[in-house]
Amino acid sequence: MGQLREECGVFGIFAPERCDVAYTAYYGLFALQHRGQESCGIVVNDDGLFHGYKDVGLVNDVFTPERLQALGKGNMAVGHCRYGTTGSNGRENAQPIVVNHVKGRMALAHNGNLVNSFELREELELKGSIFHTTSDTEVISYIVTEERLRQPSIEQAVNHAMDRIDGAYSLVIMSPSKLIACRDPRGFRPLCYGTREDGAYIVASESCALAAVGATFVRDIRPGEIVVFTSDGVRSIEDHCDQFPPSLCVFEYIYFARPDSVIDGCCVHEARMRAGAFLAEEHPVEADVVIGVPDSGTDAAIGYSKASGIPYEMGMIKNKYIGRTFISPGQKSREDKVRIKLSTISSVIKGKRVVLIDDSIVRGTTCARTVGLVRDAGAKEVHMRIAAPAFKNPCYYGTDIDSRRMLIANHHTVEEIARIIGADSLGYLSIENAMRLGGKPFDGAKQYCSACFDGDYPTKVPVSKQKNRFEYKISRKGSKKK
Amino acid sequence: MGQLREECGVFGIFAPERCDVAYTAYYGLFALQHRGQESCGIVVNDDGLFHGYKDVGLVNDVFTPERLQALGKGNMAVGHCRYGTTGSNGRENAQPIVVNHVKGRMALAHNGNLVNSFELREELELKGSIFHTTSDTEVISYIVTEERLRQPSIEQAVNHAMDRIDGAYSLVIMSPSKLIACRDPRGFRPLCYGTREDGAYIVASESCALAAVGATFVRDIRPGEIVVFTSDGVRSIEDHCDQFPPSLCVFEYIYFARPDSVIDGCCVHEARMRAGAFLAEEHPVEADVVIGVPDSGTDAAIGYSKASGIPYEMGMIKNKYIGRTFISPGQKSREDKVRIKLSTISSVIKGKRVVLIDDSIVRGTTCARTVGLVRDAGAKEVHMRIAAPAFKNPCYYGTDIDSRRMLIANHHTVEEIARIIGADSLGYLSIENAMRLGGKPFDGAKQYCSACFDGDYPTKVPVSKQKNRFEYKISRKGSKKK
Amino acid sequence: MGQLREECGVFGIFAPERCDVAYTAYYGLFALQHRGQESCGIVVNDDGLFHGYKDVGLVNDVFTPERLQALGKGNMAVGHCRYGTTGSNGRENAQPIVVNHVKGRMALAHNGNLVNSFELREELELKGSIFHTTSDTEVISYIVTEERLRQPSIEQAVNHAMDRIDGAYSLVIMSPSKLIACRDPRGFRPLCYGTREDGAYIVASESCALAAVGATFVRDIRPGEIVVFTSDGVRSIEDHCDQFPPSLCVFEYIYFARPDSVIDGCCVHEARMRAGAFLAEEHPVEADVVIGVPDSGTDAAIGYSKASGIPYEMGMIKNKYIGRTFISPGQKSREDKVRIKLSTISSVIKGKRVVLIDDSIVRGTTCARTVGLVRDAGAKEVHMRIAAPAFKNPCYYGTDIDSRRMLIANHHTVEEIARIIGADSLGYLSIENAMRLGGKPFDGAKQYCSACFDGDYPTKVPVSKQKNRFEYKISRKGSKKK
Amino acid sequence: MGQLREECGVFGIFAPERCDVAYTAYYGLFALQHRGQESCGIVVNDDGLFHGYKDVGLVNDVFTPERLQALGKGNMAVGHCRYGTTGSNGRENAQPIVVNHVKGRMALAHNGNLVNSFELREELELKGSIFHTTSDTEVISYIVTEERLRQPSIEQAVNHAMDRIDGAYSLVIMSPSKLIACRDPRGFRPLCYGTREDGAYIVASESCALAAVGATFVRDIRPGEIVVFTSDGVRSIEDHCDQFPPSLCVFEYIYFARPDSVIDGCCVHEARMRAGAFLAEEHPVEADVVIGVPDSGTDAAIGYSKASGIPYEMGMIKNKYIGRTFISPGQKSREDKVRIKLSTISSVIKGKRVVLIDDSIVRGTTCARTVGLVRDAGAKEVHMRIAAPAFKNPCYYGTDIDSRRMLIANHHTVEEIARIIGADSLGYLSIENAMRLGGKPFDGAKQYCSACFDGDYPTKVPVSKQKNRFEYKISRKGSKKK
Repeated sequence: MGQLREECGVFGIFAPERCDVAYTAYYGLFALQHRGQESCGIVVNDDGLFHGYKDVGLVNDVFTPERLQALGKGNMAVGHCRYGTTGSNGRENAQPIVVNHVKGRMALAHNGNLVNSFELREELELKGSIFHTTSDTEVISYIVTEERLRQPSIEQAVNHAMDRIDGAYSLVIMSPSKLIACRDPRGFRPLCYGTREDGAYIVASESCALAAVGATFVRDIRPGEIVVFTSDGVRSIEDHCDQFPPSLCVFEYIYFARPDSVIDGCCVHEARMRAGAFLAEEHPVEADVVIGVPDSGTDAAIGYSKASGIPYEMGMIKNKYIGRTFISPGQKSREDKVRIKLSTISSVIKGKRVVLIDDSIVRGTTCARTVGLVRDAGAKEVHMRIAAPAFKNPCYYGTDIDSRRMLIANHHTVEEIARIIGADSLGYLSIENAMRLGGKPFDGAKQYCSACFDGDYPTKVPVSKQKNRFEYKISRKGSKKK
Repeated sequence: MGQLREECGVFGIFAPERCDVAYTAYYGLFALQHRGQESCGIVVNDDGLFHGYKDVGLVNDVFTPERLQALGKGNMAVGHCRYGTTGSNGRENAQPIVVNHVKGRMALAHNGNLVNSFELREELELKGSIFHTTSDTEVISYIVTEERLRQPSIEQAVNHAMDRIDGAYSLVIMSPSKLIACRDPRGFRPLCYGTREDGAYIVASESCALAAVGATFVRDIRPGEIVVFTSDGVRSIEDHCDQFPPSLCVFEYIYFARPDSVIDGCCVHEARMRAGAFLAEEHPVEADVVIGVPDSGTDAAIGYSKASGIPYEMGMIKNKYIGRTFISPGQKSREDKVRIKLSTISSVIKGKRVVLIDDSIVRGTTCARTVGLVRDAGAKEVHMRIAAPAFKNPCYYGTDIDSRRMLIANHHTVEEIARIIGADSLGYLSIENAMRLGGKPFDGAKQYCSACFDGDYPTKVPVSKQKNRFEYKISRKGSKKK
Repeated sequence: MGQLREECGVFGIFAPERCDVAYTAYYGLFALQHRGQESCGIVVNDDGLFHGYKDVGLVNDVFTPERLQALGKGNMAVGHCRYGTTGSNGRENAQPIVVNHVKGRMALAHNGNLVNSFELREELELKGSIFHTTSDTEVISYIVTEERLRQPSIEQAVNHAMDRIDGAYSLVIMSPSKLIACRDPRGFRPLCYGTREDGAYIVASESCALAAVGATFVRDIRPGEIVVFTSDGVRSIEDHCDQFPPSLCVFEYIYFARPDSVIDGCCVHEARMRAGAFLAEEHPVEADVVIGVPDSGTDAAIGYSKASGIPYEMGMIKNKYIGRTFISPGQKSREDKVRIKLSTISSVIKGKRVVLIDDSIVRGTTCARTVGLVRDAGAKEVHMRIAAPAFKNPCYYGTDIDSRRMLIANHHTVEEIARIIGADSLGYLSIENAMRLGGKPFDGAKQYCSACFDGDYPTKVPVSKQKNRFEYKISRKGSKKK
Repeated sequence: MGQLREECGVFGIFAPERCDVAYTAYYGLFALQHRGQESCGIVVNDDGLFHGYKDVGLVNDVFTPERLQALGKGNMAVGHCRYGTTGSNGRENAQPIVVNHVKGRMALAHNGNLVNSFELREELELKGSIFHTTSDTEVISYIVTEERLRQPSIEQAVNHAMDRIDGAYSLVIMSPSKLIACRDPRGFRPLCYGTREDGAYIVASESCALAAVGATFVRDIRPGEIVVFTSDGVRSIEDHCDQFPPSLCVFEYIYFARPDSVIDGCCVHEARMRAGAFLAEEHPVEADVVIGVPDSGTDAAIGYSKASGIPYEMGMIKNKYIGRTFISPGQKSREDKVRIKLSTISSVIKGKRVVLIDDSIVRGTTCARTVGLVRDAGAKEVHMRIAAPAFKNPCYYGTDIDSRRMLIANHHTVEEIARIIGADSLGYLSIENAMRLGGKPFDGAKQYCSACFDGDYPTKVPVSKQKNRFEYKISRKGSKKK
């Protein structure tokens, strides 16, 4: 595909009274659908009794009205949508995971990726544990369960589990009587909560999901913080806060999150506008028109236009039916596929010097075709500007690029890439300016993870980089066909 | 829904050699998906043998790789996607219609709506004909078949059928050896053709479908023209040309067509930009920001911004997973549904005087909720501008509004509507300027249909306005549930 | 398959009050499922409004509780299950056919096969008619509709249509206010009616369907008779009775009908027992045990046992999950498939001289494998007895054998067939005794059709024997895959 | 339903070369379908790599040709079909279970039910184990895995696991290089193996599955035996043999197994014939005809007829489409449902004194309706004979009756039951004769489990009799709707 993919969105609700929490979770997941289109699930807690449903498919396909109805009412629910970077795709690895243990029930939804799951899994297996999935979320559920046998409360079990698990994790955990939100000490992935007028608490990966269910944003969960929602109100455990400098994934701003979300104090749309403005400053060019590659290049294009004074124009259109589910029957070349997905308005482009803004270049092939489309529409010049630094290293924190081989910027200079993609010029955002996208000043002390740009990993790197160490192929109805 | 819907898109290919015409039709229909999401179909002609498949669903769902493969190769194909304004929804009325007659085979795809189908159907039934569907496309297939018994060729049968059928029709008809494109004498619906490098001819409702299959636009089919594609080349029958003034549906520019299509000499995006510019001129206002309601208000918003000098901003975002297939499980109020579908970027809106541009107001309820969203995001003022004249009369030419009762502009003044939708001011495009959207000067002699605005119907009006006169409920698997 | 297949079962109900007629039709069709497993349908008449559903699949799969509920209540219903001998398989040809005509509505279900449908269809097409299916039922619906334009009532239209259509047809026709049962003048296919305690009339292909819905058998519809059920009671039109000698298909007794049905005065089980007794008389043999090939050889085996004094034993078992829907994934040879479907109880067979009874031999291959199974189980001798005469000619009246090439008895003597199938001896039922299966004496004047045995066709033979003359391949979702 | 249900069938193949083991498993499971219709699964071992698929549904529905193809080739496979007595129904509990552990892979299929799974599960959970299903098969997989960490081989792990698990279990376990068959020390459930001409070993619950895949029966697995199939041949571990007297479930002969299977030295059909003969001796009656309730009463009816001299007749027929999947849309009373499922041939019954043979009476309601059907068909007298002793106690070894409340024989005398079911007389098989069904003499030392008749449980009884102690409702696509 040549596209980056985030792995997950998480959602939770704690309501004061029994109500339609399944519907709330449905709408919340729908707003988080961009974070994971492979599978989704909801578990409802009705006075300690858990009713759940999960399957591969989009939220809207998996949760028919009948299925939502069947989930019934309750006062809590946890939801999850997943792309899946660790573990084979398919139903097996769908979340939330429900643990039904003699010490009590627990449902768990996870966004992120551990860097020590290999070691933890081996340790657990040698004690006799059996794993049914290949996701590291199951590792977390084991660790929390082990701690639960020693700790007086579920939140203390989570607190002690945090000493053992390492990496990126934003978790929502539901016990029979509590809803718990937990963000890893570095805060790789976003997590926030809000309140609804009826007194319900809502936890979500992004604030856009709060808005979608009519809740008001209260604040981000702090890196390292555990927030516990019970009928007695909200309580915070901060034992793991301030352990490390924050390292939110900067691609949340550039690509993953929805433009209307506010993450760690910064509106994503504003961050993208800022990227465009920085680009205009770093890589100015004489041109007639600024065009964004839809959807994620649009905001930066407007930012570039404002900063440079070159008019913004709608010159490319994305076929809105293509979703991420478009099946190309395989008879057409890749060039054709780009033509199906993107189209140009030639009256806007013809004879013009075009600044074309996109969010990233992975392998370069998609970018080459996009530039080709603009040239075919009659552009006199095409100046490519990328609203992110060049992507050179694998990510171990929940995105799906794990090999340097595929990354064009790893083998080629900017000039070479410009030639490969057929652009008259090419400019990337500098790492320094990337560190300023959230609106905070940057003096060299990073507040975001820049590992994929400069290899500066905030954690140790996984011992086994082979992602599918624990893979076996056990498919069920509905699993992805190969 | 409160939204207008177009009924159909048609597509045809005539290739010089046996090739993957089914795949071409698939990609073509995919590009025309916005014209009809209810059902779709493709019929392939392999040396006179027809292989077809049609079903309810989006192009991408109906045509799995296996199904496309099963259609096989051929040198011609006809495709259709449908929303369906006449006749009950569902599989029965899916197109293309295949007629398998002693005088030969024929596949037929139709966009439009007849105004005399009631009389024609009664006449045919009294001669012993039996109808299996409730669509007027079946009426056309009967009339063409009757004429076929008297005429020496399929194209002459179509030519004589045009004397009997009245209303809006853009047809693609495939016989064992010919592909025929035909547009009604007033040209209500668009139809054009192009050529591909391998010598294939492509016919499509909109030029965007030519681009999607790698074909070059040649020209629009003229109102009243029959164009015949055979192995001997292209031939035109113009007996019904210039009978009437042209009356292309102006909503093709405003709402139905894709912005990158060029219809009757005018790029749709340009027409919408022009609508925005006219609006800025007709209804100026002091404001801080211009925002378009996505997707169809965006182009006009940019036009308004350019003409007025008020900055354009991306202040509203549409959830791209909502498609037209979003199932709301029915527990949430309509207000909630708008919140799921559209979201605002409050940093763009807060404290601003907003010009909000949309393409139409039907019942007013959706518009009221959109204005409410903008106010909730902190707008100081909201000035609504509509890129079309007020919609006051039913359409008989292929859109789905058939009752004056539902049209808010039919009962209320502009001021009343502004109050109902909660806007500080409201401005519609004038009918005069609507007649100029295509870029041609307007001196009172209309070149577009304005019936829905002013009741000036280019044809006689149907005797029976009850759309479902011939309805009976015979459902099959996959039909819409009520 | 090497098996004969019947084409259809028909069912109708006329109730005095609005009630759950859809459920009654469902249970009735379920009891008639053996007559057709390819597709089924029900149309309910609720005070003149028709609600129908039909699809490919077994009755139990097509009619989910939701679908039956959706059909609603009414005072009439027509149902159909189909195997399909004329016309391609699939949804297109599912019945009942609903005709929605300016002169009124009609739903039509048909069992049988016309011998002049080719001529009738050509005649109708040359008048401008268009056919949507390839079944001759659509021909009947056109002829009845044509007559309806000239006749004062639907029953008179049917009466006049009977002058024009020729062949085998048992029809159930529903108009807004009447239910009509009609059987061709030779009575090829069975049709009977009964009454339920609430005063409802039930029409069905076989009496087993009356029992299944709690109705009491009244009588068979006479060959050539039209019976009209209205709110005024039952009325009979006998214009076409006694035109020809009766010629019920004798295979209804031997194979098609259910053993508990009573057809034209004779219980099917009794007819089969009689076949066994005749076989014992015609082809006696010294043996230790009589075994029937399940299911249809069982009754005759018991009859043979009683007449011969040789003990009957359960020596073969059919896998009851195999239905007629067993999908063999194609990796195993045909021998394996027989082994999956049938198994032997070797303690019953080992060392024994076995009389093995089956209902027919078509191509001989299945029979050879069955004999092989019995030998593998240790039988000392295998004496094959067939409860029907040798099958030598195509059938034009609604069974699926249309070529002499496939019929083993057409090319081989009895001795040769015995050798081919590996039996120590082989005996067929004589045609004379076949004519006595219904329990009536036989003096040379046949009361049953014997055409497939002796070529003595009761009607003229079709001009075009090519069944798929009007075929084109237009598939839809759910159609049979090839 | 009022019917007993067995829980499972297991199947395994070890082939000398890579071949179509998935197809073999498919055909084997198809032959074992009567042992479990709820879900099924196959896991293929291709040189240590496991490929599996499992889902709810019949074998023929779950394993489409595409799915079998996708499983690929291998030299081993394990298959399972399940009814499910412990644990909620549905996909979660489908088998085989695959364990993917640092010490190696394992696939496990289980027929039976443990009596100490509650204690084992609690013990495991308190050590930190997490259970994903509610079936006791998962408990077995944990115990075997724990032992695996201490033992040098998988077979020794199984051997030691047998010291800890108690109850009924016939297991097939597949490791990367071995296939292991294991039967509990009392031999509650059957298990046997055979060889195929190509040298493959086949393990199956019943010998009918060996025949279905073309294998020759070698012998039953002994109670307590572990048989290991490797490329070095067959090896047996007998540490747990002869610990206890054998206690095969006698209902395997009476109802569960297929008549053509041979279990522990006795053909099931013969056992049933013997039951009929014992009944004729224990409960003689003057009558005209013996009729079996299909399917499972037929064999005993023939046995009764032979022993008593009263003629056997086919007087009842079962609708072969009803399968176990018949959905009654709920509008009809239970009486109607029996009429749909069973029908009578009145010419056989009318005016006769009937001996009616069935395999069991559970709640009495079904039996009453069956007797009613025979009376409605005109029987003068109905003498019910049951080919088993009265069923009075719950079963803990893998059948689905767990409450004494529902068992009619627990509250009523034989005379009362006769009156309740409307029979002129009623006779059960004596427990003594039940102990003779396998053909071995009986002197008071039981060789079969008789617990459900006399409460003489061969094991300790489970502490928690509440079956669903570990239940939580987490459904997935395809799970049973409630």
